[in-house]
Amino acid sequence: MSEKLTHYDDAGQVSMVNVGSKDITERTATARAFVAMSANVLAALPSNPKGDPLEVARIAGIMAAKRTPDLIPLCHQLPLSHVEIHFTVQADGVEIRASAATAARTGVEMEAMTAASVAALTIYDMTKALDKAIEIRQICLVEKTGGKSGVYRRQEGEE
Amino acid sequence: MSEKLTHYDDAGQVSMVNVGSKDITERTATARAFVAMSANVLAALPSNPKGDPLEVARIAGIMAAKRTPDLIPLCHQLPLSHVEIHFTVQADGVEIRASAATAARTGVEMEAMTAASVAALTIYDMTKALDKAIEIRQICLVEKTGGKSGVYRRQEGEE
Amino acid sequence: MSEKLTHYDDAGQVSMVNVGSKDITERTATARAFVAMSANVLAALPSNPKGDPLEVARIAGIMAAKRTPDLIPLCHQLPLSHVEIHFTVQADGVEIRASAATAARTGVEMEAMTAASVAALTIYDMTKALDKAIEIRQICLVEKTGGKSGVYRRQEGEE
Amino acid sequence: MSEKLTHYDDAGQVSMVNVGSKDITERTATARAFVAMSANVLAALPSNPKGDPLEVARIAGIMAAKRTPDLIPLCHQLPLSHVEIHFTVQADGVEIRASAATAARTGVEMEAMTAASVAALTIYDMTKALDKAIEIRQICLVEKTGGKSGVYRRQEGEE
Amino acid sequence: MSEKLTHYDDAGQVSMVNVGSKDITERTATARAFVAMSANVLAALPSNPKGDPLEVARIAGIMAAKRTPDLIPLCHQLPLSHVEIHFTVQADGVEIRASAATAARTGVEMEAMTAASVAALTIYDMTKALDKAIEIRQICLVEKTGGKSGVYRRQEGEE
Amino acid sequence: MSEKLTHYDDAGQVSMVNVGSKDITERTATARAFVAMSANVLAALPSNPKGDPLEVARIAGIMAAKRTPDLIPLCHQLPLSHVEIHFTVQADGVEIRASAATAARTGVEMEAMTAASVAALTIYDMTKALDKAIEIRQICLVEKTGGKSGVYRRQEGEE
Repeated sequence: MSEKLTHYDDAGQVSMVNVGSKDITERTATARAFVAMSANVLAALPSNPKGDPLEVARIAGIMAAKRTPDLIPLCHQLPLSHVEIHFTVQADGVEIRASAATAARTGVEMEAMTAASVAALTIYDMTKALDKAIEIRQICLVEKTGGKSGVYRRQEGEE
Repeated sequence: MSEKLTHYDDAGQVSMVNVGSKDITERTATARAFVAMSANVLAALPSNPKGDPLEVARIAGIMAAKRTPDLIPLCHQLPLSHVEIHFTVQADGVEIRASAATAARTGVEMEAMTAASVAALTIYDMTKALDKAIEIRQICLVEKTGGKSGVYRRQEGEE
Repeated sequence: MSEKLTHYDDAGQVSMVNVGSKDITERTATARAFVAMSANVLAALPSNPKGDPLEVARIAGIMAAKRTPDLIPLCHQLPLSHVEIHFTVQADGVEIRASAATAARTGVEMEAMTAASVAALTIYDMTKALDKAIEIRQICLVEKTGGKSGVYRRQEGEE
Repeated sequence: MSEKLTHYDDAGQVSMVNVGSKDITERTATARAFVAMSANVLAALPSNPKGDPLEVARIAGIMAAKRTPDLIPLCHQLPLSHVEIHFTVQADGVEIRASAATAARTGVEMEAMTAASVAALTIYDMTKALDKAIEIRQICLVEKTGGKSGVYRRQEGEE
Repeated sequence: MSEKLTHYDDAGQVSMVNVGSKDITERTATARAFVAMSANVLAALPSNPKGDPLEVARIAGIMAAKRTPDLIPLCHQLPLSHVEIHFTVQADGVEIRASAATAARTGVEMEAMTAASVAALTIYDMTKALDKAIEIRQICLVEKTGGKSGVYRRQEGEE
Repeated sequence: MSEKLTHYDDAGQVSMVNVGSKDITERTATARAFVAMSANVLAALPSNPKGDPLEVARIAGIMAAKRTPDLIPLCHQLPLSHVEIHFTVQADGVEIRASAATAARTGVEMEAMTAASVAALTIYDMTKALDKAIEIRQICLVEKTGGKSGVYRRQEGEE
């Protein structure tokens, strides 16, 4: 564990780290979130006549990806070239996968993590009237590519 | 489970629900998040000479609480009278408790949930250079008070 | 036409007008917008397998209503108690009706107008690949209630 | 009409489309809006001693162009190299032309459309005390240049 | 100096202080800023054929007042009932007075200070091509009214 | 003084100036602000058990740098590659130095100036309970590099 906490400069002061000397490369990241809910609540999702909480969550997650540097204090502003969010309804909840891509000097992990988190919060918001005990279980980075550190893939069993 | 999904109006269309006829009452909510990280990463947090990732996360969480209606599509705008965020460093990670209060026509659950989530994302952002496998485990509502539905407290063992 | 332009103070300088002495009353407003498009483009909207441009536009409009004071320089910040947006697909385009409500010292006309406009712009954005000549025709206030000036209803034939 | 709705991916799910493989080229767009108002209201605009509603609208439109990706859910973030807004006072209202330019992987139509729309909404806001029946008539794209699809110019008579 | 730093709670942790038990009262505040510039730059301001940097600064200051809780981490969100900004061109620069008012549980000092500061920054931005040495000299609170601490007026000679 | 006010186009209308033909170069800027406060207030800053107003101000300033184009009407959006803020506690107050860097078509003076200003405002906010007479004295550009106009350094004695 030789690396320093990168948001601290030499004097230990918080800063938005200097990425000016890094190369612009294609970078992608995928994050996962899981919203655990009971079978009853899950059953209510598709029965809604004209709407779908997951579609609202998808828009919220995409928009949040673009707001990441407004939310996470030391994140750089990145021009996202792509954001997408996929939902998989499972027996005990909804799995969210959010992916983001850019051509920039630093990675898009936080954009993917933020998109997944806000999508999860939106699902919570839209279903909390049915069950306040719904919870968001596990938000994590699944994969990243690009940049000097190269490819990262979360190990099997870690998820 | 007799309640409808409250963000849908009679025709099933998504809307920001009408709270105009609800009373203005004092309302509070507390949410919990947990950022799981290894002992090595945890050990690095306080050793940083002049700064502290948790303090950055605290500011981020407080500011995010105020941005909740910008992030969660159907949330009402609430004038928050109080926001606070507490961290407890545990053996396997950092526990976050975010509380919010208002005097308004609808509750502050989403403000507390959003504050906890963005604080957790910020901790992730500030420590991900040390370990990309850090994950946010469980974000949930711990307690709410006020409004017609009254007090909710998450059951022992649920957390 | 005896009224002054209300955003100018006595010296003729632009200001956010003082509403401090006005009463807090229930106020509503409804605005209309129309997105004119060809039958071909209209036909493509529902055929999309899993999504619907109108649902994206609905979320965009609701979120924009909350951002009105960030966009319109002299608008007051209002706590919206309700926002809803209805679409009617017609032979030559999509009619949008956006309604907003508040209990405040000034009206919600601009929130309704902004919601309708941003919903219309979003429909344009999502269909412009099919036809760049799509246009937004007529954005206007249909009705307002509340406040000292009372009820306003747009006359038949004006729309 | 062979093109798909571009904001939908292969599975029909809404996404922010991947522009990562597009070239960075110079792109411009001009949009038009028209705010129809009576001769009485028009006459009141310049008589105001020290201010001018059009100048407020101009600033609002320029600032809104920069906020486009915050408002239109699936818009990419573009670094605008130029925004300008021109007004022409006509017998029956105010014509607005908003132009935007960028060097990017995707076009600036929505930035120009949003600038024109918010300028029009601001004129409405600043004159609605004189006449609530003022309406925004026609918002459309006048011209775009750059990108793979090249130049588009709205036909004579279309406006 | 018996008062604590109010943004710290009992354990010394930063929080958005609890104003829930304070009364809603009418509150006003006025702040002052001064942009020092040479006679040459000052002379250029009014000679500009159709525009005026001060009018752009006025709009920027009013809009910034509304964004105060987005900028100042521990500020509460306040519904502003009034914002106005006055400029006085003096021999050695431009004096700015920004006033804000609300009916709320906490004061509007920061809204007035932020409006004055952003107006000053905007004047700097619009004149820096003429002289990079222009500086903002002194931003301070001139007066506040309302709330438990009552009226504060800056002493003669302090300004 | 041959230069025009750069935010005005040929017809004298305010616009976001066209930087499309400028080269992308590395650009930096450093701004200074000074928050004057009494020895009593200064003494209170470090005695706070777990928190530090300067750390809150640092985060606020960094975040504000990213929001500059939202605040200053005619500022271009720049992808900041670095932001840092240093504080020096002096006998009569706190000196702030804010630096920003980018690779872009226009300079980062306003980002550095905005970061310094918002950091100063935040210090004011967090100490105003101790002394309302605290004032922000002098905000100015200390240095800029990059772009056609090259290096600017404020002269000795000017500060």
